[in-house]
Amino acid sequence: MSAAPKTTGAGPLRRLKVIDAGAMIAGPLAATQLADFGAEVIKLELPEIGDSMRHWTPMKDHRSLWWKVIGRNKKLVTLNLSLPEGREIFRKFVATADIVFENFRPGTFERWGLGYDALAKINPRLVLVRVSGFGQTGPYASHGGYGTIAECFSGIPSFTGFPDKPPTLLGFPLADSVAATFAAMSALMAIYERDQGGSGIGQVIDVSLYEPLFRLVESQVIGFDQLGIVKQRIGNRLAEDSPRNTYETCDGNWVGISASSQSTFERLAQAVGMPELITDARFRDNASRCTYGDELDAILVAWFKTKTLTEVMALVDKGNVVAGPVLDICGIFQDPHYRARQNIVEVPDDDFGTVRMQSVVPHFSRTPGCVTKSGGGLGKDNDEVYERLGIGADERARLRSLKVI
Amino acid sequence: MSAAPKTTGAGPLRRLKVIDAGAMIAGPLAATQLADFGAEVIKLELPEIGDSMRHWTPMKDHRSLWWKVIGRNKKLVTLNLSLPEGREIFRKFVATADIVFENFRPGTFERWGLGYDALAKINPRLVLVRVSGFGQTGPYASHGGYGTIAECFSGIPSFTGFPDKPPTLLGFPLADSVAATFAAMSALMAIYERDQGGSGIGQVIDVSLYEPLFRLVESQVIGFDQLGIVKQRIGNRLAEDSPRNTYETCDGNWVGISASSQSTFERLAQAVGMPELITDARFRDNASRCTYGDELDAILVAWFKTKTLTEVMALVDKGNVVAGPVLDICGIFQDPHYRARQNIVEVPDDDFGTVRMQSVVPHFSRTPGCVTKSGGGLGKDNDEVYERLGIGADERARLRSLKVI
Repeated sequence: MSAAPKTTGAGPLRRLKVIDAGAMIAGPLAATQLADFGAEVIKLELPEIGDSMRHWTPMKDHRSLWWKVIGRNKKLVTLNLSLPEGREIFRKFVATADIVFENFRPGTFERWGLGYDALAKINPRLVLVRVSGFGQTGPYASHGGYGTIAECFSGIPSFTGFPDKPPTLLGFPLADSVAATFAAMSALMAIYERDQGGSGIGQVIDVSLYEPLFRLVESQVIGFDQLGIVKQRIGNRLAEDSPRNTYETCDGNWVGISASSQSTFERLAQAVGMPELITDARFRDNASRCTYGDELDAILVAWFKTKTLTEVMALVDKGNVVAGPVLDICGIFQDPHYRARQNIVEVPDDDFGTVRMQSVVPHFSRTPGCVTKSGGGLGKDNDEVYERLGIGADERARLRSLKVI
Repeated sequence: MSAAPKTTGAGPLRRLKVIDAGAMIAGPLAATQLADFGAEVIKLELPEIGDSMRHWTPMKDHRSLWWKVIGRNKKLVTLNLSLPEGREIFRKFVATADIVFENFRPGTFERWGLGYDALAKINPRLVLVRVSGFGQTGPYASHGGYGTIAECFSGIPSFTGFPDKPPTLLGFPLADSVAATFAAMSALMAIYERDQGGSGIGQVIDVSLYEPLFRLVESQVIGFDQLGIVKQRIGNRLAEDSPRNTYETCDGNWVGISASSQSTFERLAQAVGMPELITDARFRDNASRCTYGDELDAILVAWFKTKTLTEVMALVDKGNVVAGPVLDICGIFQDPHYRARQNIVEVPDDDFGTVRMQSVVPHFSRTPGCVTKSGGGLGKDNDEVYERLGIGADERARLRSLKVI
């Protein structure tokens, strides 16, 4: 694996100033997405305790590895917003920020006197992005904002997984991660409107955890509205596509197949040595293949069980079949494409010298993003950041003793 | 369900000019995300055939419902880029565009003389966003760009689903949808760099379908690098969190629970009338609960089987438990929170009068996005758009007869 490209500070967002006042995943990851591309992100954490992600598994030597990823590329500062002096300092941060991300329970910022109107008086150019489980309005606004609950609420688990198993959740926080991406994207929209749209002023963006997932399932609403379709759990098949599944090889690996178009199906039938499938009336087009999906699947399951992954991939490559292995992280570390794309980078780390993590996504031709450092210790950048804010060493000592910073 | 808010054309991106030269999902959905917020998106489609999504199920009266969502808010124009005259017209579009999205197989634009260098000569301010299955570089760059294969390649299915079932894919195109969001986000980063970063020029952004998913699984790489962790399929539980699952009620509904923190677990134990779980040594903290996850799960499965969804939700609300129903689309249409947030909007449609679909996400306070129209007929806006480009009625007739437009 190669080191991160040497383009420190040259990302597309290097003039953008962001305050990460969030905690856990969705707010902070939105900020990290911008930090990955050069924005200056100042991350605020509770003194002594720090962000909850610091206490999340997996741990090594009592250090959270997840924190090192979500906390990367940020300036790390302690600040207690629940204390009046903390809020006074927060207002100083707000004065020069382009974007603030927060994901407290709706109403918390208002209770602290930090609602948008109050912040806009300090800095009318501020874009305030508020992330919460159910959004800032509506009957469930005050409910806890957990990604799992939002994922369930979005509709996706109801049609993900197998009919004889429960609605299936992903093995990582999908709702938080996708909402973070929407939060970062929409913050940039508001910045564009402020700077290029001619208004010169900011606004509030209300990002829930459930709506981004709901947005992405394109045919869910209209399919029900127009045809009464209620998507069901049918395993890895899709009601609209056949064949599409993951198949186990005789050496215990898995291969994904997506071959619903006629040409991709015919190439698959040739590659597996069963050209007779093409003329079989049950499989003559995608609609028929969907009807006889179980039968087609059984044929493919049996075929894959007779081949190793290497044998399958040789046939697949030769036949230009749309197929690929289900990689786990071992496979990812060994894969030549991951290596060629420099998807895994080695990053300086205060605890372990260097650590490896995923690089920035996507790739920019002229001003690429990069990972300059992993998430560091609590309050690591207090001196630098507070000095710049006009808060000298003596004052910092006083604030520290009061647990304001 | 309420109609779309009456804020036509007032979205944050109303000065942004976008060309959607993509097909299927990832490129076009990136453009739709910007169109949802007021960008002028001109969608180019093959004459006579149109985008593949026009032929995708679910269909009503031979009209694709999915197309009506992904094609919404766009100006629809036919243009055949594989013909020299088509490319001549494409260059005219490029001259005034801010962003072009394309998702042809890598190398196609170059073969047509439409590589970035050629386009930048026409318009140095252009941001060219290229979406493909495996990206523009690396050994698999030329492989077909199907979302299912990218999802398998990202690592996610290897740890999603149940150990006695295959690696589990989502019931909708996850890789395409998330990549589209990254494509839209990163395009806005490049626009910011061009306009506010001081360069005044565009660049190329290379978005694959697998890297955005790989990016979002924060602890996958570092967990393997530092501790050798290979995430496994363990159903709806997480190795780091317990309890977290979906549970079936006696009336056949499902409820999601996420209660790994001590306070949320204790509230859950009280709400289900089993305070003794709190003092049970096996469940005394999250780490122990993860160790005895099967035992805890069995207790909860049995409890949920004795209650209806209504009974569960009453206890959950009273006890401030982090829990919520697994909704399907029927439940979504009936839910008061979805209604209060106006998540489903009624949109004018050329075929069916009006159709209902998901609204824009997220919510902006001052310049909200909106859905003004569903995806319409092929070439619907040819006259308006080509007239503006200086191509008159006679010339359009000639180009149409040659199947250029």
